[in-house]
Amino acid sequence: MSDTQAIGNRLKRIEGQVRGVQQMVAEDRYCIDILHQIQAIKSALAKVETQVLKDHAACCVAEAIASGNADDQREKFEELVTLFEKAKR
Amino acid sequence: MSDTQAIGNRLKRIEGQVRGVQQMVAEDRYCIDILHQIQAIKSALAKVETQVLKDHAACCVAEAIASGNADDQREKFEELVTLFEKAKR
Amino acid sequence: MSDTQAIGNRLKRIEGQVRGVQQMVAEDRYCIDILHQIQAIKSALAKVETQVLKDHAACCVAEAIASGNADDQREKFEELVTLFEKAKR
Amino acid sequence: MSDTQAIGNRLKRIEGQVRGVQQMVAEDRYCIDILHQIQAIKSALAKVETQVLKDHAACCVAEAIASGNADDQREKFEELVTLFEKAKR
Repeated sequence: MSDTQAIGNRLKRIEGQVRGVQQMVAEDRYCIDILHQIQAIKSALAKVETQVLKDHAACCVAEAIASGNADDQREKFEELVTLFEKAKR
Repeated sequence: MSDTQAIGNRLKRIEGQVRGVQQMVAEDRYCIDILHQIQAIKSALAKVETQVLKDHAACCVAEAIASGNADDQREKFEELVTLFEKAKR
Repeated sequence: MSDTQAIGNRLKRIEGQVRGVQQMVAEDRYCIDILHQIQAIKSALAKVETQVLKDHAACCVAEAIASGNADDQREKFEELVTLFEKAKR
Repeated sequence: MSDTQAIGNRLKRIEGQVRGVQQMVAEDRYCIDILHQIQAIKSALAKVETQVLKDHAACCVAEAIASGNADDQREKFEELVTLFEKAKR
């Protein structure tokens, strides 16, 4: 199975989890249980992030390095730094 | 509109965002754009968390206080502390 | 050893870690090593937070419950919710 | 003032904040106030992280790009990805 498929499958599961929380809210389930479920979704999203980031390093970044194009390489680094900064907020 | 509806609507939007990311992955869109989109979903989930937590304070917790039942109150506090701890990890 | 002492000791270690990072910066050490060290400090602070929070539950909150004073109890809950919200940002 | 000095000054302030929290703990100050203070330290550390990361991009990464050395560039990317992953946990 390719990484794209693996990431797609994880996202499909996350979509199901979000629908599950909607159901819980509609059924007036206990708030604390809902909050734990939301935390589980956030963890699952963090795993997708890591996988996408590794994919990115393995393809786009590797390409920029192979190209020997300094502007392209600089751009790739700046994108990562921007993303990192945004994640901190 | 009740809080339950407001929370339900937010979750429906988040479900749409997750489907949007699946689409982006399937279309082989640029990794960095996908990562920014995932961060947007995490922010949206954090807002739902705050809203559910406030609801919880306004209903279940208020009830426990009104009941004057110390065991019930203790349980409510412990649940919040556990949740807080889990959020840190 | 009381909890207060345990927390104090952890904080003394964290103070030392912060001084260590200052040293690394002054010596122009490698940025990535500095960043890993800062992450270690943030993890250590998270552990102190958990310990302080548990202490809080064990003393101030327990007292508010024992007092049977609803206003006092409400205040304790609201403080926790505010803190939780702030942590998310 | 150089970036190194600016970062050093921020860290000195953080060291002072950590000592302040030790004092608060020793004086048995209110737990919630201590927790807010710890959150302030974590925010201050996040700002130092961003600054160090930008410095890193401006010097070490720029150097790796200028060198045209693919192995060196790959290493720089991998370090960032590892750091990012660790930050998520």
